Amino acid sequence: MLTLTCHRSKRNTADEQKTDSKMMHSTRILISCPDKAGIVHAVSGFVAENGGNIIDSQQYSLGLNAQFFMRLVVDGLNQELSKLEELLKPISTKYKMDVRLSRGAKRMAVMVSRYDHCLYDVLLKQQYHEFNTVIPVIISNHADLKHVAEKFGIDFVHCPIIEANNDKEKLANKLKQENNIEACLKKYSIDMIVMARYMQILSANFVQAHPSQIINVHHSFLPAFKGANPYHQAYSKGVKIIGATAHYATEDLDMGPIITQGVIEVGHRDTVDDYIAKGRDIEKWVFSKAIKAHAEDKVIIHEGRTIVFD
Amino acid sequence: MLTLTCHRSKRNTADEQKTDSKMMHSTRILISCPDKAGIVHAVSGFVAENGGNIIDSQQYSLGLNAQFFMRLVVDGLNQELSKLEELLKPISTKYKMDVRLSRGAKRMAVMVSRYDHCLYDVLLKQQYHEFNTVIPVIISNHADLKHVAEKFGIDFVHCPIIEANNDKEKLANKLKQENNIEACLKKYSIDMIVMARYMQILSANFVQAHPSQIINVHHSFLPAFKGANPYHQAYSKGVKIIGATAHYATEDLDMGPIITQGVIEVGHRDTVDDYIAKGRDIEKWVFSKAIKAHAEDKVIIHEGRTIVFD
Amino acid sequence: MLTLTCHRSKRNTADEQKTDSKMMHSTRILISCPDKAGIVHAVSGFVAENGGNIIDSQQYSLGLNAQFFMRLVVDGLNQELSKLEELLKPISTKYKMDVRLSRGAKRMAVMVSRYDHCLYDVLLKQQYHEFNTVIPVIISNHADLKHVAEKFGIDFVHCPIIEANNDKEKLANKLKQENNIEACLKKYSIDMIVMARYMQILSANFVQAHPSQIINVHHSFLPAFKGANPYHQAYSKGVKIIGATAHYATEDLDMGPIITQGVIEVGHRDTVDDYIAKGRDIEKWVFSKAIKAHAEDKVIIHEGRTIVFD
Amino acid sequence: MLTLTCHRSKRNTADEQKTDSKMMHSTRILISCPDKAGIVHAVSGFVAENGGNIIDSQQYSLGLNAQFFMRLVVDGLNQELSKLEELLKPISTKYKMDVRLSRGAKRMAVMVSRYDHCLYDVLLKQQYHEFNTVIPVIISNHADLKHVAEKFGIDFVHCPIIEANNDKEKLANKLKQENNIEACLKKYSIDMIVMARYMQILSANFVQAHPSQIINVHHSFLPAFKGANPYHQAYSKGVKIIGATAHYATEDLDMGPIITQGVIEVGHRDTVDDYIAKGRDIEKWVFSKAIKAHAEDKVIIHEGRTIVFD
Repeated sequence: MLTLTCHRSKRNTADEQKTDSKMMHSTRILISCPDKAGIVHAVSGFVAENGGNIIDSQQYSLGLNAQFFMRLVVDGLNQELSKLEELLKPISTKYKMDVRLSRGAKRMAVMVSRYDHCLYDVLLKQQYHEFNTVIPVIISNHADLKHVAEKFGIDFVHCPIIEANNDKEKLANKLKQENNIEACLKKYSIDMIVMARYMQILSANFVQAHPSQIINVHHSFLPAFKGANPYHQAYSKGVKIIGATAHYATEDLDMGPIITQGVIEVGHRDTVDDYIAKGRDIEKWVFSKAIKAHAEDKVIIHEGRTIVFD
Repeated sequence: MLTLTCHRSKRNTADEQKTDSKMMHSTRILISCPDKAGIVHAVSGFVAENGGNIIDSQQYSLGLNAQFFMRLVVDGLNQELSKLEELLKPISTKYKMDVRLSRGAKRMAVMVSRYDHCLYDVLLKQQYHEFNTVIPVIISNHADLKHVAEKFGIDFVHCPIIEANNDKEKLANKLKQENNIEACLKKYSIDMIVMARYMQILSANFVQAHPSQIINVHHSFLPAFKGANPYHQAYSKGVKIIGATAHYATEDLDMGPIITQGVIEVGHRDTVDDYIAKGRDIEKWVFSKAIKAHAEDKVIIHEGRTIVFD
Repeated sequence: MLTLTCHRSKRNTADEQKTDSKMMHSTRILISCPDKAGIVHAVSGFVAENGGNIIDSQQYSLGLNAQFFMRLVVDGLNQELSKLEELLKPISTKYKMDVRLSRGAKRMAVMVSRYDHCLYDVLLKQQYHEFNTVIPVIISNHADLKHVAEKFGIDFVHCPIIEANNDKEKLANKLKQENNIEACLKKYSIDMIVMARYMQILSANFVQAHPSQIINVHHSFLPAFKGANPYHQAYSKGVKIIGATAHYATEDLDMGPIITQGVIEVGHRDTVDDYIAKGRDIEKWVFSKAIKAHAEDKVIIHEGRTIVFD
Repeated sequence: MLTLTCHRSKRNTADEQKTDSKMMHSTRILISCPDKAGIVHAVSGFVAENGGNIIDSQQYSLGLNAQFFMRLVVDGLNQELSKLEELLKPISTKYKMDVRLSRGAKRMAVMVSRYDHCLYDVLLKQQYHEFNTVIPVIISNHADLKHVAEKFGIDFVHCPIIEANNDKEKLANKLKQENNIEACLKKYSIDMIVMARYMQILSANFVQAHPSQIINVHHSFLPAFKGANPYHQAYSKGVKIIGATAHYATEDLDMGPIITQGVIEVGHRDTVDDYIAKGRDIEKWVFSKAIKAHAEDKVIIHEGRTIVFD
């Protein structure tokens, strides 16, 4: 039987990890709804009535009666989020709003396999307080990177996939592993999951259980070079620029809504190994940029595309 | 005696020049004021009361009691701008707002000397309706580019600087030329002036008469390589990236608020001529980006820096 | 019957068009062969014996016995190219070399349809002597851009495709048009053909008749978004970066060896029209970069990929 | 009294650190001399006579009689480097060559103070075998980053600067510290020194003792924003792009020959802290790119500028 083995470091810094202080005491409000006259006035009225002050606001509309998107950062709203949601009900109902309220740092789980470059980058940026997150746990199907978790004083949970003798068993083992991961996510009260080059394909069930909460980094400029070995594909095609893409994980592999993309030039002197080395820098960069945007509630998904506020 | 010679093309397309239709029927409101609770609610209330619908809005604040910036694009406000300004008075007074209202395309004068690359780029982008402008006139201290103006059916006004025998005369001739330019700007009801590699230094008087209305492009990555021959300076310093900067013209040469910047890599094989060639592409790019932003009223200047909304 | 109508401008500047003087009096030698010890010594010996001085040289090897690539720029070789080729025979035979010798400017035909942005960019860069080319003729399936050719004093040849009543006729008309183009290329002694957003698919016959001599610009970051409407495809996929690709035309549409690629960021505020506008700048940039590299004999194709020397 | 305290980790991996295998068995030859006919032939003849095979070669010339630069990578030269230098004497004397011969990985010392981002980046890239280096030692004026050295199994040498009571003492203490550093460099047989945000200004003596062997990273786009607090300077100037520069350390602070530069866009929403965070990524990138180029002997300095071969 598989059991969840939890390697607790002596010093779990999750609760101590500092985050961007701007984020800590303000309320973030994300709204998506059909565009009608009066929305901004209604929402800003709601904020004012409840003692809030808008310190940042961005809106974007696809046109009247088409979709409208809004992000507010508000100081001075001291009510519980559930209370706020209730108070907003009359407005959110009237305008058919999809509302997301949040406050403070997100609890982020980092999933890894054996590559450490994205993991290190996330942990170092966390230490420099670049993200609005705390990282209570690192989850992996391999034990290789346990030492990194320990170094940074973060719990490491090893969720291996037991070797299977046949396809049926393989599926079963995979499901067991995902159940272990789910238990771990629950235990650590995780808000967002980031796949720092986690080399397993997540099941549809798992992905659906965390809608718009799982960020993956793919080592190509999607939609080019989906699937395996994108750098080899890029080399053989002879492209002059390679890239990486951070996107929300969906059931369709490498097809979820794109959050950030980045590129770097390659030349004829570059081997596939050079592509991989150059690519690592781009992977880290797009990945951390996506994490930052998501953790600050700056991303809204609409019809498979993302609105990413500044 | 200097006389303003106006070479009118047969077909003055200024009034026919099409512009981005999104811009034509909406009102753009730019606000800068100390940040206080309630501003957004007050402004959005004003919009709603006067029959408007906010179709785009961006805000940015340096913090409560520090400066607050807002750009609104509003449909359905059919009042004259002067009437709107009056209606907004109670709010703009209360919050000590610096307000800029505008509607429709800006009337842009392009100033050139002998280089044609930025001029062509602006005219072609105008033809592709990339700017929210009409271009009634091209003004130059040389006659060389008259043929380009004619080709595009735009008036060309030659304002030469008469050769001087001494410094006093030199200054006088320069002032006369600027007076001629001023007369031309007035005649064509110009809203914004862009210096497409215009190789004369404008007088303080001239610049002050058009605050935040003159855009210059400098062929370096300011503040590096101010003044003359920036590409030669860059070459001799051995930098690996060169750039260009579009900025508002102020009395301090090459020191006005920066709107856009762009760069391109250079290598040891590049000569100064290669720098100049590569630079032309960057100059065009930053220049047109700045023109686009300004013409859509997306730029606010605050303490020597610019807020450039998306 | 279709006839080739040649609209000769009064002033055909092709022969007067200045080009980069570095290129004019030197001989360019491009070599591709299996890598063996002694190649560089043999070739540099050949150069020295024949009175030449190597002023630039780049080599690149995929490893011993794998392919070796070399580009030399040599001064002082005054022999006819055919004579030089003969003199080089013992070496080129011994090492199984694929050799390309050239000198002076290439004669370039620009093919267009109705979009003028790439055409203007090429003509202006030609005027600034950025390319090692002369442009004796612009060829188009439409007459729309004749005025641009006239403006720049370049012959314009209109090769329309006659409307067809059925598929068979359609094919026949297409072939007739291509025959007309071929006649035109011959008449103007064309060395290289560039498709400045020429909106017709060239037949396999045509492409094969000009191996590695036709450069196309595709408005996407190939291999992403092949075929029609790449900007619409990019928009619907929600990518955050769009691009353009200059490549050699081959029978496989949008699949020929890539020479240059470029990208630009797009955001959620950008419409498809904004993509198209931003894309134009990138198209121009990658296109002119590819033209420059090819005209200076800096590109070698090997197994579907390009070596592009600096 | 100051003493050199050497914290040896249990596992000193310097000798085990793997490097790019391409580099290990080949000889790198860097040549700089006045350009004359016959150089390439002479050098390639020398290589062939001594049993070598050129596997990579790049040349660049500023013109006949001006300076010529060449980099060769040669397989099959099994002689000691000193022997090779002797064998090359007739040619190097004849052509007045400045020759640099090297083989295998460079022994690199990393100097740090308290910032860890560049240090981690270098160590991780070393682990991924991206550099042609081994890292036997990390030297610091503070003890803060000892734990990082230990984590990566690299010796950490703490060379503190003793607090001084007056200027004379201050200078003396500084010299003592540099003497300690020199002793350390000698002990570890260091070939190249990289300042991974080492926050002390090196004395002229120290710098002169290691000509073209010390690489520094400055957190601005030099020559803009030299000296202290470049991100603050950039913010107050309102630039739209910030950058970083890796350069050789010379006596003139922040003025040595530039090896690599990189930039990133900033917007009005970015605070100085955001500049610093974004800047860290650029610093790492330009720094590691410069280390890679130098360690592979791809950089030649000429008149204050660098030739950086591909």
